[in-house]
Amino acid sequence: MNCSIARALDVLGESWTLLILRDVLSGLRRYDQLEASLGIATNVLAARLKRLTELGLLERRAYRERPRRYEYVATERARDLAPVLIGLLQWGDKHLAGAAGPPRTLVHNGCGRPATTELVCVECREPIAQHGVRLIGPLRAKAV
Amino acid sequence: MNCSIARALDVLGESWTLLILRDVLSGLRRYDQLEASLGIATNVLAARLKRLTELGLLERRAYRERPRRYEYVATERARDLAPVLIGLLQWGDKHLAGAAGPPRTLVHNGCGRPATTELVCVECREPIAQHGVRLIGPLRAKAV
Repeated sequence: MNCSIARALDVLGESWTLLILRDVLSGLRRYDQLEASLGIATNVLAARLKRLTELGLLERRAYRERPRRYEYVATERARDLAPVLIGLLQWGDKHLAGAAGPPRTLVHNGCGRPATTELVCVECREPIAQHGVRLIGPLRAKAV
Repeated sequence: MNCSIARALDVLGESWTLLILRDVLSGLRRYDQLEASLGIATNVLAARLKRLTELGLLERRAYRERPRRYEYVATERARDLAPVLIGLLQWGDKHLAGAAGPPRTLVHNGCGRPATTELVCVECREPIAQHGVRLIGPLRAKAV
């Protein structure tokens, strides 16, 4: 697949993957915590955690001996998905929250304020949304 | 579902949805263009386009009469997913490109340079990655 979006979706594939990463990146690391938070069948969760570990998104670490217990730690590869999760969160907050409003508030640890985020170009620091971006390569190049 | 990430994933659900949006946001609007780009079964594409239209992500517009032909235009709701797609693209570029390097180059229309993007807090303009964010609400609050 000659497209990084397609490759990324192929790895992430189904929504449990991103929801598990949401939880691990939010500080839930143990099997029982994840099971309670996700409401996921235990065999499905076990399979997903195994797969995420194989893919290098999670690292399994023993946190107790006798009986041996493991927790799951996000790797850099997983932490680099934070912008995708934040993007999904803000999209859901804006477009799917309905009259009740967003269920949770994202707070920026830097300034302590409720965080609205935007993408900027690292080169010129301008917001991406203002002028847009285009992809150069096999897929037709056009403003996104 | 008391989480905007979960709601967003439930709407977007499977990878065809985001790949169709990738193409429409890249300028492919017609059925045959999308079919050729995606290599997707025609009945699956038709069902996805219908669903994306019902969800308010695409708008169907006639661009020719006799025979009547339609194109699909991204709504604001779809355009607001651009940061998610850009996030997936950059993650795939960094983690899945292998020795061949990224298949395509993202260029910022503002400055004309290959674009690396980062999320900043709209309030204080600091990069999100530096201090992180936390979610306040039902899911355990902790740095993402």
